[in-house]
Amino acid sequence: MIRIGILGYGNLGKGIECAVKQNDDMELAAVFTRRDPSTVKIQTEGVGVYPVSDAPSFKDKIDVMILCGGSATDLPVQTPEYVKYFNVIDSFDTHARIPEHFSNVDTAAKESGKVGIISVGWDPGMFSLNRLYANAILVDGKDYTFWGKGVSQGHSDAIRRIDGVKDARQYTVPVPEALEAVRNGENPELTTRQKHTRECFVVAEDGADKARIENEIKTMPNYFADYDTTVTFISEEELLKNHAGIPHGGMVIRSGKTGWNGENKHIIEYSLKLDSNPEFTTSVLIAYARAAYKLNKEGVSGAKTVFDIAPAYLTSMSGEEIRAHLL
Amino acid sequence: MIRIGILGYGNLGKGIECAVKQNDDMELAAVFTRRDPSTVKIQTEGVGVYPVSDAPSFKDKIDVMILCGGSATDLPVQTPEYVKYFNVIDSFDTHARIPEHFSNVDTAAKESGKVGIISVGWDPGMFSLNRLYANAILVDGKDYTFWGKGVSQGHSDAIRRIDGVKDARQYTVPVPEALEAVRNGENPELTTRQKHTRECFVVAEDGADKARIENEIKTMPNYFADYDTTVTFISEEELLKNHAGIPHGGMVIRSGKTGWNGENKHIIEYSLKLDSNPEFTTSVLIAYARAAYKLNKEGVSGAKTVFDIAPAYLTSMSGEEIRAHLL
Repeated sequence: MIRIGILGYGNLGKGIECAVKQNDDMELAAVFTRRDPSTVKIQTEGVGVYPVSDAPSFKDKIDVMILCGGSATDLPVQTPEYVKYFNVIDSFDTHARIPEHFSNVDTAAKESGKVGIISVGWDPGMFSLNRLYANAILVDGKDYTFWGKGVSQGHSDAIRRIDGVKDARQYTVPVPEALEAVRNGENPELTTRQKHTRECFVVAEDGADKARIENEIKTMPNYFADYDTTVTFISEEELLKNHAGIPHGGMVIRSGKTGWNGENKHIIEYSLKLDSNPEFTTSVLIAYARAAYKLNKEGVSGAKTVFDIAPAYLTSMSGEEIRAHLL
Repeated sequence: MIRIGILGYGNLGKGIECAVKQNDDMELAAVFTRRDPSTVKIQTEGVGVYPVSDAPSFKDKIDVMILCGGSATDLPVQTPEYVKYFNVIDSFDTHARIPEHFSNVDTAAKESGKVGIISVGWDPGMFSLNRLYANAILVDGKDYTFWGKGVSQGHSDAIRRIDGVKDARQYTVPVPEALEAVRNGENPELTTRQKHTRECFVVAEDGADKARIENEIKTMPNYFADYDTTVTFISEEELLKNHAGIPHGGMVIRSGKTGWNGENKHIIEYSLKLDSNPEFTTSVLIAYARAAYKLNKEGVSGAKTVFDIAPAYLTSMSGEEIRAHLL
C-alpha cells in the first residue's frame, strides 16, 4: 500500500481523500492543517488530523505527501521544504515562476533523495502533456488552448472584491466560432477577445448600484477589459441553486501539416468536460503520486514534471497487463 | 544529427521520408528495399537505396532504423532481427501477438544493447497512451474507442478480393448517436453494430452482377456481417477523383466518476482528424525514433512501448524549454 499524506484540507485536500478511496493500492495516512486540527472533520474513518508542524515526524509513515496549498505563497515555500522528508506532489500553476520553483525543488529533492513532481493537474498537467505530444508529432503546426465552459475561481474572487457585491460566479466560455475555425484546420490568428467570453453571475447587496458594479467588472484590467463580458444579477438563492458546482474543462488543439510539401492537414484535440475541477485535478495528482512512489523505489530523486514521467508509472497495472489490455 | 534508416519504401516509408525532412535534428541516411533498388525512386537528394541484405553493413551509419513492413509476416521477423544492429521502431499492430513480439524484441535488444520501440503509431500508439492516462486518472470509469471517419485498408482489400470487383474503398464511420451518448456521459453499452457503420464504394467489372457483389460484401463474416453496411457502385473515374486519399482518425473517450460517492462525472476525449493516415503514423514513429536514440545514448536497452517512454524524450527541445513554453 502506498501511504498518502494530505497537507491542506480545502477543495484539493478533500478531492485527494476521495481519490485515495478509489485506488486500491493506496491508503490515507494522515491529514495536516494550519487550522486547529480539532476543527477539521475529514471523511476517512480512523485517520488523524494533525498540525502541519507535526508533518516531519511522519517521515517514515508517509510515502507521498500531496501539497494542497496555493501557488501564490504556499507552494514556493512548502514544496522545497517538505521534499526534505517525503516524496511530494504539487499543482504549482504560476507559469512564469515554474523554472525557479523547479530549480528550488530539484536542489532540495536531490539532497534528501526524494522525488518532487511539480505543476501536476490538468493545466498545467494533462494539457501540457498534450501540447508536448502534439508538438513532437506535428512539427509544422499551431497550438490552441481553450478553457471552459467553467468556473474561474480567480475571476469570481475579483468580482467579490467589488464594493456592493455579496457573491459572484464567473464562467469562462470558449467562443464557438473560434473553436470551429480551429477544428476545421483554418489556423486562425485569435485575439484574447476572439477566444473566450466571460459570463458573470452576481449577487448584489441590497440597494447597491448595479450599473456601477457592472461597469467596474467590465472595465477591470487583466481580468475582464480584454473580453466580451456579460453580467447578470441574480438572487443569492439562485446562485446557490444553479451555480454551486465547480465545473471546468477545455481543449488543447494542435493543427499541423505533413507531406513533402505540407499537403496534408491533421488535427489533434484533447478535451476535458469536468463536473468538479478540484476532484479531477486531484485524480491526476494521485496518479502522479503513484509515479513518485515507484520512481523513488527505483532510486530516482529530484524535481520532475509530467514531461519526465513515463506513462506506465501512473497505473497500478503491470507492464504485461497494460500491453495486453490498453496497447 | 540523428541518422535515420528506412526499411521498406511503401506508404509508411514515404511518410518517414517526409517526416525526417520536417525535423531539423534528423537526416535520412539510407533506404532499404526488397525490390530491385534501381526501380525505387525516393525524394531525398543524395540518399541511396540499397537491398535489405546490405542493411547490417550500415550498423555504424544509422542511429535508428524505422521498420515499415507489415504486421502479419514482416515485423515479427524483422524487428528482432534488425534490433541486433540498430535502435529500431515498428508499428506492429496485431494486438493479440504483442506480448510475444515484445518478448522476442526484448531478448534480442538486450543482447545487442539497443532499444526497440514496438507498436508505435496512433492505434496502437497515441490512442493506447490516452487509454492509459485516462484509466490512471479516472479509476472508476468506462473506455470507448471510435475509429473514423476513415479508410480501412484491410476492409477495402477484402472487397477487392470479391469476384467482379475492380476496385473499392471502405470507410469506417462512427455512429453519431453512439458518440453523442458517450460524450454526454451516459455510459451506454454498445454492440459492434451500434458503434460504427461501414460505407463501401465499389467499382464493378463490366457486366458483373452487382446484386451478388453487394450481398457478398454485406454478409462477409468478421468484416461486414456485424455492421450496417452501405454499398455504392461508382465509376473508376469517380473513385480516383473523390476517394484517392487515405484519411482516418477517431476518438478515445473515457467517462468516469469521482467524489466520495461518485457524484461527479468527467469526460476525457482524445480525437484525431487525419488527412493522411500513413503520414500521421510516421510522424509519431519519427518522434519515438528520437526517443530511442536519446534513451540508447543514456545506456538503455531492450524492448519498449509508448507506455515506457517519458514524453520529454520525444521532442528536440530541452527540459528548460519545454518547462518554460509547454508546461
